[in-house]
Amino acid sequence: MSKKNIDKVSIFALGGVGEIGKNMYVVQYANDIVVIDSGLKFPEEDMLGIDIVIPDITYLTENRDKVRGILITHGHEDHIGGLPYILRTLNVPVYGTKLTLGLIEGKLKEANLLGETKRILINSDSEVQLGSMKATFFKTNHSIPDSVGVCLDTPEGLVVHTGDFKFDQTPVNDQYADLHKMAHLGSRGVLALLSDSTNAERPGYTGSERTVGVELEEVFRKAKQRVVVATFASNVHRIQQVINAAEATRRKMTVIGRSMVNVVNIASELGYLHIPDGMLIEPEEVNKLAADRVVILSTGSQGEPMSALTRMARANHRKVDILPGDTVVIAATPIPGNERYVGRTVDELFRIGANVIYGPGSVSGVHVSGHGSQEELKLMLNMMKPKYFIPIHGEYRMLRQHALLAESVGIDREDIFIVDIGDTVEIQGGIARRGPRVPCGNVLIDGLGVGDVGNIVLRDRKLLSQDGILVVVVTLSKQDGTIMSGPDIISRGFVYVRESEGLLDEANRIVSSTLNRLMTENVNEWASLKTHVKDALGRFLYEQTRRRPMILPIIMEV
Amino acid sequence: MSKKNIDKVSIFALGGVGEIGKNMYVVQYANDIVVIDSGLKFPEEDMLGIDIVIPDITYLTENRDKVRGILITHGHEDHIGGLPYILRTLNVPVYGTKLTLGLIEGKLKEANLLGETKRILINSDSEVQLGSMKATFFKTNHSIPDSVGVCLDTPEGLVVHTGDFKFDQTPVNDQYADLHKMAHLGSRGVLALLSDSTNAERPGYTGSERTVGVELEEVFRKAKQRVVVATFASNVHRIQQVINAAEATRRKMTVIGRSMVNVVNIASELGYLHIPDGMLIEPEEVNKLAADRVVILSTGSQGEPMSALTRMARANHRKVDILPGDTVVIAATPIPGNERYVGRTVDELFRIGANVIYGPGSVSGVHVSGHGSQEELKLMLNMMKPKYFIPIHGEYRMLRQHALLAESVGIDREDIFIVDIGDTVEIQGGIARRGPRVPCGNVLIDGLGVGDVGNIVLRDRKLLSQDGILVVVVTLSKQDGTIMSGPDIISRGFVYVRESEGLLDEANRIVSSTLNRLMTENVNEWASLKTHVKDALGRFLYEQTRRRPMILPIIMEV
Repeated sequence: MSKKNIDKVSIFALGGVGEIGKNMYVVQYANDIVVIDSGLKFPEEDMLGIDIVIPDITYLTENRDKVRGILITHGHEDHIGGLPYILRTLNVPVYGTKLTLGLIEGKLKEANLLGETKRILINSDSEVQLGSMKATFFKTNHSIPDSVGVCLDTPEGLVVHTGDFKFDQTPVNDQYADLHKMAHLGSRGVLALLSDSTNAERPGYTGSERTVGVELEEVFRKAKQRVVVATFASNVHRIQQVINAAEATRRKMTVIGRSMVNVVNIASELGYLHIPDGMLIEPEEVNKLAADRVVILSTGSQGEPMSALTRMARANHRKVDILPGDTVVIAATPIPGNERYVGRTVDELFRIGANVIYGPGSVSGVHVSGHGSQEELKLMLNMMKPKYFIPIHGEYRMLRQHALLAESVGIDREDIFIVDIGDTVEIQGGIARRGPRVPCGNVLIDGLGVGDVGNIVLRDRKLLSQDGILVVVVTLSKQDGTIMSGPDIISRGFVYVRESEGLLDEANRIVSSTLNRLMTENVNEWASLKTHVKDALGRFLYEQTRRRPMILPIIMEV
Repeated sequence: MSKKNIDKVSIFALGGVGEIGKNMYVVQYANDIVVIDSGLKFPEEDMLGIDIVIPDITYLTENRDKVRGILITHGHEDHIGGLPYILRTLNVPVYGTKLTLGLIEGKLKEANLLGETKRILINSDSEVQLGSMKATFFKTNHSIPDSVGVCLDTPEGLVVHTGDFKFDQTPVNDQYADLHKMAHLGSRGVLALLSDSTNAERPGYTGSERTVGVELEEVFRKAKQRVVVATFASNVHRIQQVINAAEATRRKMTVIGRSMVNVVNIASELGYLHIPDGMLIEPEEVNKLAADRVVILSTGSQGEPMSALTRMARANHRKVDILPGDTVVIAATPIPGNERYVGRTVDELFRIGANVIYGPGSVSGVHVSGHGSQEELKLMLNMMKPKYFIPIHGEYRMLRQHALLAESVGIDREDIFIVDIGDTVEIQGGIARRGPRVPCGNVLIDGLGVGDVGNIVLRDRKLLSQDGILVVVVTLSKQDGTIMSGPDIISRGFVYVRESEGLLDEANRIVSSTLNRLMTENVNEWASLKTHVKDALGRFLYEQTRRRPMILPIIMEV
């Protein structure tokens, strides 16, 4: 313990604060680094053409020999989705519970990383020594089974990370949260608590997942024809309740949508889903059964354009149709940004005559959040009684609301650290303060490219998306600079060429006269010619149309 | 009345059904056409670069001599915003109440259409003869004063259009809805009712605007520093309540944001806003007063990037700053699609240390909707007791929910017509049936252009926004087709050129070898050369990057 005066615990996030997604938290003590979670984020609306976003792990790769492992709290994409990219450059052991590892292994297999990745199975009783730190775990309730919180026993004291959680007093599958363990940690004394802020803006308590089961059974019972249930593929509890409701109402179930089939397979193989014998049928068999004997479990609860539900709603799913009079249950809330997609899918379902159950869980009854609301967040804070509090997993406003909740249960404002990614909180001799920042950021993934799309490319895509592009091609004589051919103007995404011939003809004349004028003035460096053409044409087009297309002059010499 | 057997009432929407926005409803009897409202819509996320969307009025311009006038129910953009574009091609009289006309006149002035447009002031007691139809009006409660519903007395019977409405039993400014008039219409017998479906998905009743005033005064009283209130500029009731709360708490008020200044000017000139003498101050005077003596009324409740609130949140407003400890009230709900913008603005306000009051009206207490919820929609239906019902003003799912509400109060399903734009409902001899469709659609406005951007241009913008563009320039010999210069590849929005030199070099080689091969095969039509270059390069790039940039080959001959 002589090190105590020299070394310190350093806590920071490489993702997950100031944003929803790409969760990655780091705790370092001297030469030991422990990473918690490794998620992805879906692109924001100004990240045009980007598929996914992962954290910048420069700090970890620069300190790769210190990284003792990555602890995964649960199997959601925003906690595991970055692994296939990150493990390529940082080959360290990954720790997770059974279902979590099962889901991770599916991803690593696809990425050809399964063989070279050390995966270590834990359960809530495991103890893992990671250099100078020891990790223990506690079960939490969340919208996926096998979720845990993490307690890191560091030389400075206990650092607790809640993972994603709610307090569900009647959990499905009787997976109760480890309340006693949490209380015990609080009794031992928690140095720093990192806690889930997702629902910090929401008053009260989040409903129990079990209430959804009651409602689903009611819906199944009333439905005179098929029932389609769309939910998050990873919500194994919800899927179990669909199965239970199907059993209670003597319906058989088929599963459609790639990720749903995948999760149902993994979760049932690993014993997290209990499917009665003979209940599962192939999609092709649906038409052979009476309509009131069928449930279709589907992806597409976010209205994703290519999902099974959206395709069914548009009557272009290969195997299953939705017929007038069928009941469709959308058992999810739109993620911010997806509201319009979900709305459109509901519209399409209504148009084909389906009876659609959708909307906020408080209205539809078929959805509850997986994250605790304000009273539950306060309960966690009171249970853990941390000396220092770092709200995590949320946009800035959620972290801020969580901080206010912490103040309301008696934590001093100066003991609460709202951090951005890269901000460090250092604790030494029991005293926490802000430390130097570490490198951090968004790594954008577009197709197979990792990091080859950045601000300039995105800015160009934005420009192109607003007003399109005009390519101006002209050939000049090497001898005297006169125009040998062109100018030709090719436009894409600017105007209908047929309806704008006059405009483009005039644009042509402007390019010619600009070039001719420059020749008489003996301006003949290409860069200057191009700039003049761009400016003259840009000005003309803005006057005429109030648009600013990208202009790309191409000048050739012969 | 001998015509009754020959002519019919025809009812259709050119905008406002299957969408939120660009409201425009048409009632025709024989040679008389009456238009109700003329709104705009904001572009959907796939309408890249588009500024606004208005209805296609081909039907009206083709029948221009029959159009007797445009009746405007109230002064919101989705009811008046199309006028400056539509009146250019269809110069007909516009009827509106005092505030509505005041707001319209501001728009027409900007568009240089004020002189040539006949504007006719009405109030709720007016009677307007429009050919064979007589229009009367009834006051409604909505989030803007001077809103009315319309009753058209046609030879077939009464056609009633509710306008946008809620039932507010304690309205601000004591503008009560004309309940007795509505009841009287119901007693006379309504042939067809067109009613606002905006909140048809929402159970219960919408709260009274007055509850917001109580909460605002409470917030103002508690605030130790400045209060900034952001709300819709057109919500004159809300603005009056801000003024009342300011008066009660002895604060002075300044107004920022172009549309807010505009509405406050028009509404106070016309007597719809009562501002105590000496209350209004210039933005420049804010800093001269004690912080707890100031209210700032601002635009930006939707987090619009260029709005006054957003600029203040980013500390780049010219005149007014928000300081740590100031209170910011966002008295509005995000319009679907704007959630992320509002969230970002709240984040920025919290970051500068403001106390932000935001979120759903049920949580914040500072906002109520202007549209009636399910119980109010049923009340309207029960009051009007229409023979036929056409839900309007809403996405398809809202129309559908409204139809279900109508069924629940006893209207037969076959007497309810859910329509898309262009669908007609014809009523003849008291019998309604679906008639032939009329031309309809979205007219996209981009800059000064009306209708010169359509599907092809939008498709190109979409493509460009996803993966950018590669322009391939090559000069071939006229004599033997050999490559004289190039190929040069210019990329925009595809990859960082510096980090992808190898990729682009290889792309170059592929273009050259493709062209050389084609020469030996004697393929020399340009179209064919271009197609081959596009295909070969596209295939290579997709294999290497899984992206599909637009490829624009430019082949020149010398």
